[in-house]
Amino acid sequence: MNKEELIKELCIETDSKIVLLVMDGLGDLPVNRATPLEKATTPNLDSLAKSGCCGLTDPVLRGITPGSGPAHLSLFGYDPTKYILGRGILEALGIDVDVKEKDMVARGNFATLKGDMIVDRRAGRISTEKNRSLCEKLNNSIKEVENTKVTFYTGKEHRFVVKFTAEGLSDKLSDADPQKENKPKVYPKPISSEAKNTAEIVNKVMDKVTDVLGDQAKANTILLRGFSKFPCIPGMKDLFKLKTAAIANYPMYRGLAKLVGMEVLEVGSEMEDLFDALKKFFNKYNFFYVHVKKTDSYGEDGNFEAKKDIIEKTDQFIPAVLDLKPDVIVVTSDHSTPCSLKSHSWHPNPFLIFSNTAQVDKVEKFSEKECSQGYLGRFHSLSAMPLMLAHAGKLVKFGA
Amino acid sequence: MNKEELIKELCIETDSKIVLLVMDGLGDLPVNRATPLEKATTPNLDSLAKSGCCGLTDPVLRGITPGSGPAHLSLFGYDPTKYILGRGILEALGIDVDVKEKDMVARGNFATLKGDMIVDRRAGRISTEKNRSLCEKLNNSIKEVENTKVTFYTGKEHRFVVKFTAEGLSDKLSDADPQKENKPKVYPKPISSEAKNTAEIVNKVMDKVTDVLGDQAKANTILLRGFSKFPCIPGMKDLFKLKTAAIANYPMYRGLAKLVGMEVLEVGSEMEDLFDALKKFFNKYNFFYVHVKKTDSYGEDGNFEAKKDIIEKTDQFIPAVLDLKPDVIVVTSDHSTPCSLKSHSWHPNPFLIFSNTAQVDKVEKFSEKECSQGYLGRFHSLSAMPLMLAHAGKLVKFGA
Repeated sequence: MNKEELIKELCIETDSKIVLLVMDGLGDLPVNRATPLEKATTPNLDSLAKSGCCGLTDPVLRGITPGSGPAHLSLFGYDPTKYILGRGILEALGIDVDVKEKDMVARGNFATLKGDMIVDRRAGRISTEKNRSLCEKLNNSIKEVENTKVTFYTGKEHRFVVKFTAEGLSDKLSDADPQKENKPKVYPKPISSEAKNTAEIVNKVMDKVTDVLGDQAKANTILLRGFSKFPCIPGMKDLFKLKTAAIANYPMYRGLAKLVGMEVLEVGSEMEDLFDALKKFFNKYNFFYVHVKKTDSYGEDGNFEAKKDIIEKTDQFIPAVLDLKPDVIVVTSDHSTPCSLKSHSWHPNPFLIFSNTAQVDKVEKFSEKECSQGYLGRFHSLSAMPLMLAHAGKLVKFGA
Repeated sequence: MNKEELIKELCIETDSKIVLLVMDGLGDLPVNRATPLEKATTPNLDSLAKSGCCGLTDPVLRGITPGSGPAHLSLFGYDPTKYILGRGILEALGIDVDVKEKDMVARGNFATLKGDMIVDRRAGRISTEKNRSLCEKLNNSIKEVENTKVTFYTGKEHRFVVKFTAEGLSDKLSDADPQKENKPKVYPKPISSEAKNTAEIVNKVMDKVTDVLGDQAKANTILLRGFSKFPCIPGMKDLFKLKTAAIANYPMYRGLAKLVGMEVLEVGSEMEDLFDALKKFFNKYNFFYVHVKKTDSYGEDGNFEAKKDIIEKTDQFIPAVLDLKPDVIVVTSDHSTPCSLKSHSWHPNPFLIFSNTAQVDKVEKFSEKECSQGYLGRFHSLSAMPLMLAHAGKLVKFGA
């Protein structure tokens, strides 16, 4: 029996409530011997750590730096090496494109074609505004091709997302991208026979686009990569018998939550909005994913002080979470984003679980170093979900 | 090569001796910041911990609460998600039914039939004495059906075990249980074609039982669940080249030991009987599984003081074990049974290994918290067996 089936079989529905607070990219490396989390004054998180149980988690494998997709899937209880999310779908979620079962999406670049050759894969990095006017033009000129609805969505600079909507599309297509400049234009090819028809449709769309953009100096064609259909992922209700709500104010995370069947709550753009929503909807669900984005953003910026400040700010909302009396609170990150690297990294995530049924360890402060001494030890993020379920009394005994 | 094959290939037979002392359900949660093990005065276990090496083990997966079957299999070196033990077999082992290769067993309920309907799935929870007289009656009236020997064994109240003995039986049968009351009587159906013949035999037995019990007011029929044949598990001699002896005074654990091919020693019901048997048979075997049950029983009762006392009592037998000079001593539990939960739980087991070849860590006391700081870290119980074998010099080098 595989692990996913095992967990699924043991799950029961109960009223107990779980709050999973994800401080994106929280884990960090020390600057002058302290990380932002170690430098931050966090009396409330420390108090949770003191009466709860701590550890360190690896989202995928030691040494693997995950993107937001795999890192979150793992935390949500989905093996990120089994459920692979296409680049197209992640790009689409990141700019808030609503993707449904019948949709196929791809990442696109506006590019420059000269004769038969792609001479600039980024069309001179046109402005986002220019991009917006081009997408509008394309959406007005190309609405449907062979009963397939086609929609273009503006991204940053030369990047966009295109969505194809029809029955029976297949994403088994190679990239329509020569990868290097001064190479001939490339069309997507089926990499499986079921995608023959889809390849023809996409090819026609590409030609129409080149026609419509014929008058443009730079952005006169497109490249397409990472064709992805709506992924086949069992919902959290089905797998874990949970009524789940996502409280996140960035599109990528709302999108990821939607993919695993969470209900995505309407929420404002400030941190207090997250915790207001938690309070407002606390009775309606029994699993809450609360996502704080800025720890990651400041990590990516290499802004140590701002990251420390946002950690301190988050800490101040912990009493409000405690007031709701959830049965389980977990605070962790999806992946680390060290300020010194200005990017996601492979370093593990500090992890704390607070619950009546948690073993109490010796950890007295919520930090990378302290968590490494915790009773939970070092573990795969994929175990976070069974641990939360167990502490909330939602898993029955395996075998007799 | 999978892990089981790898270990098997590297095992060699030697005279070195291993004692695995399982204090059932030992792991616990703190009450007033201390667990029974932390509260107990255990100078001998502490001394083993101080000169040995400690860690924490998960029997199945983090968050999974195991039954005794999977928890023990894991400690014995068998992946509990690969070797699944049927409910019937565990019930049979628990009441000391001797199950052999040709046998198939099932759990049964005496039940009340009215017309075509099961109106009480537990026959009014008849007394165990009544149950005993009914099983006697059935055993006298139904000895064999179609060359299949049939034997009934009394359990508690309305529960019993039935054993079918013949060549070629198959346990691929659905439960003969309507699950709810006021539903029609159900017969087992084959869930695989090889079980067609067995289904017919079991159906005939069920009809005969209903005939024999026709004069009973309440217990006038039976339900059967969890059909299980003797499981296909390679023996410990075959896998690990060990001469194994089980020293356990509760039927379930003697039965589990038998399933993995251990020799089960005759032993009295007191704790001293366990250690007397160990001494008496020490020359004859090279792997000893010694099982202390009451740590679990008192955990299930929620009796913190009694659990602490039984830990202290066990501690006093450690010098007697040391006197025998085994090459490896491991002390651990199969699963945790916290007094505050009064049930098995998912919390990890304290684990200590004492051997000349053990790394010495900083742990000075045998307890959950201290073991969490041990050099062995947190690991799957399935690694306990290779660790014991390695420390006893029974595993050769892998590769050159």
